[in-house]
Amino acid sequence: MSLPRHVEIHEEGPREGFQIEPPGFAIGERAALVEALADAGCAQIQVASFVSPKRVPQMADAAELFAALRKRAGTRYTALWLNEAGFGRARAVPQVDLTGTLYFYASDAFSRQNNGRSAAEFAAEQRAWVQRYRDAGIAVDAAYVMTAFGCNLEGDVSEDRLDGVLAGVAHLLRDEALALPKLYLADTVGWANPHAVRRRVDLVRTRLPGVRVGLHLHDTRGLGIANAFAALEHGVDLFDASVAGLGGCPFCGHAQGSAAGNVCTEDLVFLCHELGIATGIDLERLLDAARLAERIVGRRLEGKLMHAGTLDAWRRGARVAS
Amino acid sequence: MSLPRHVEIHEEGPREGFQIEPPGFAIGERAALVEALADAGCAQIQVASFVSPKRVPQMADAAELFAALRKRAGTRYTALWLNEAGFGRARAVPQVDLTGTLYFYASDAFSRQNNGRSAAEFAAEQRAWVQRYRDAGIAVDAAYVMTAFGCNLEGDVSEDRLDGVLAGVAHLLRDEALALPKLYLADTVGWANPHAVRRRVDLVRTRLPGVRVGLHLHDTRGLGIANAFAALEHGVDLFDASVAGLGGCPFCGHAQGSAAGNVCTEDLVFLCHELGIATGIDLERLLDAARLAERIVGRRLEGKLMHAGTLDAWRRGARVAS
Repeated sequence: MSLPRHVEIHEEGPREGFQIEPPGFAIGERAALVEALADAGCAQIQVASFVSPKRVPQMADAAELFAALRKRAGTRYTALWLNEAGFGRARAVPQVDLTGTLYFYASDAFSRQNNGRSAAEFAAEQRAWVQRYRDAGIAVDAAYVMTAFGCNLEGDVSEDRLDGVLAGVAHLLRDEALALPKLYLADTVGWANPHAVRRRVDLVRTRLPGVRVGLHLHDTRGLGIANAFAALEHGVDLFDASVAGLGGCPFCGHAQGSAAGNVCTEDLVFLCHELGIATGIDLERLLDAARLAERIVGRRLEGKLMHAGTLDAWRRGARVAS
Repeated sequence: MSLPRHVEIHEEGPREGFQIEPPGFAIGERAALVEALADAGCAQIQVASFVSPKRVPQMADAAELFAALRKRAGTRYTALWLNEAGFGRARAVPQVDLTGTLYFYASDAFSRQNNGRSAAEFAAEQRAWVQRYRDAGIAVDAAYVMTAFGCNLEGDVSEDRLDGVLAGVAHLLRDEALALPKLYLADTVGWANPHAVRRRVDLVRTRLPGVRVGLHLHDTRGLGIANAFAALEHGVDLFDASVAGLGGCPFCGHAQGSAAGNVCTEDLVFLCHELGIATGIDLERLLDAARLAERIVGRRLEGKLMHAGTLDAWRRGARVAS
């Protein structure tokens, strides 16, 4: 299978990152980061989540953050919500580019921890969401399968288990006569490896032909970019990523520090460009955004390219020198 | 091409890492790290370099460090040298497991910067080294091609250029009637990408059939593990790596911090194990060594797995819980 010619990368840093940082970062700074990402050509940016301000105080001012954005035409500024209350709050904010997402879980324990319901119960509730989005006139754009590769609570997620979840999704789409544009496999806590990625992408294509496969990869154990490369060679052209590798899990790591977060946007864009794949993103401007994120957060972030610079910078230098 | 069943990983952290850290780390600590790496099953460990104490004061006590080692039978404790003086010093230290290495450069500018001679001049000098090793009764084990993918000073290194260097190596081996066990492509300053890795491995196999291909990868721009994965799928079974991702280049990075170093040993071992490839390394013990390195150095190191823990730990936990 050959590499895609173009890849779509959705930026999640402002939400994935700042939801686990300490609260208190000024709206002006977070808006500046979103704007820098849009200026770099990121076509879709998840700005914030509308979730319980008690559980996630860092996102309590999501509405104010959206209101503060200087939006760029053609860029989508999205939000995350997990329940009807969050959805209602998001709908009340005109700057949110509303998009419908369905969530499925490949692990019962993880579903119970996040939602208080089994994976099967939570999957059944997605039918209500289909109706809710229909009533609101919002297109369902994507479905996610969480812990699609493995779960810290349940251990390995077998391919059979995942296939069962995907069969359930196919069933729901048929029952609801819903055409689903995208399905993402989410490696929520970093269990994937490059061969598992390819085999599980195949499962999606078998169960849901015609649905575009996306990947939401975490770099928890250092395999994020390798997993993305394996997916690119398998024709996947849709990824979530996080600027500077923002995000991560203070609860999911070894005692000697917190675990890494999402795969790093600019490192992924660099991989694509070096492989001759177009992304629509200006890598130098994206690096500016990554360095801005690092200045805002005030500590060294995980991204590699941001601390080394691109190759084009050296190529230009070499041409000048010779 | 299928994955190798076994991979050999040579550990370079004690040398690559401590040669750029500030001087002054106690011999006892550095010896403890080497011992921890040997206990983890690392079959070959590059302990230190015998180089100018003025230029690299961190390695001035290389002889004392070797003398302090509690060596493990079956483990090779190697050293690096760059000239006859260094070679002489290494030979005077009984604990050094002497092994002959030849060095070639794919970039003139880099060769001049490192050696004060052009790449062609330096390549010609390798014939004297063949003789020197013969006279000393030391087997030539490997050759390295430095900046085999690109150079910060010269920019891209074309495949034609690399092929020319490899042709020169083949010429030397014929002239000297020397059988070379290994040839490493070194991505000295992080220019490689997964497809370039495969194409350049092919060049080695074409020019030097029967010579085992190795890779010395740097994670400067975040592609280290992806490059290694591409190589594994191309049948490469020999890698250099550095515990905790020690090493790096304070001079090669963007103003906002230093650039990353070698590909991280434990992250690479994890990739191999998850792909079903044997390494002979006990990953949990290797993580112990990585965390020891981090405690010694006193700052957060680059490795990802060390901060997240293995999957086997979670798998065991999940089995206990169910």
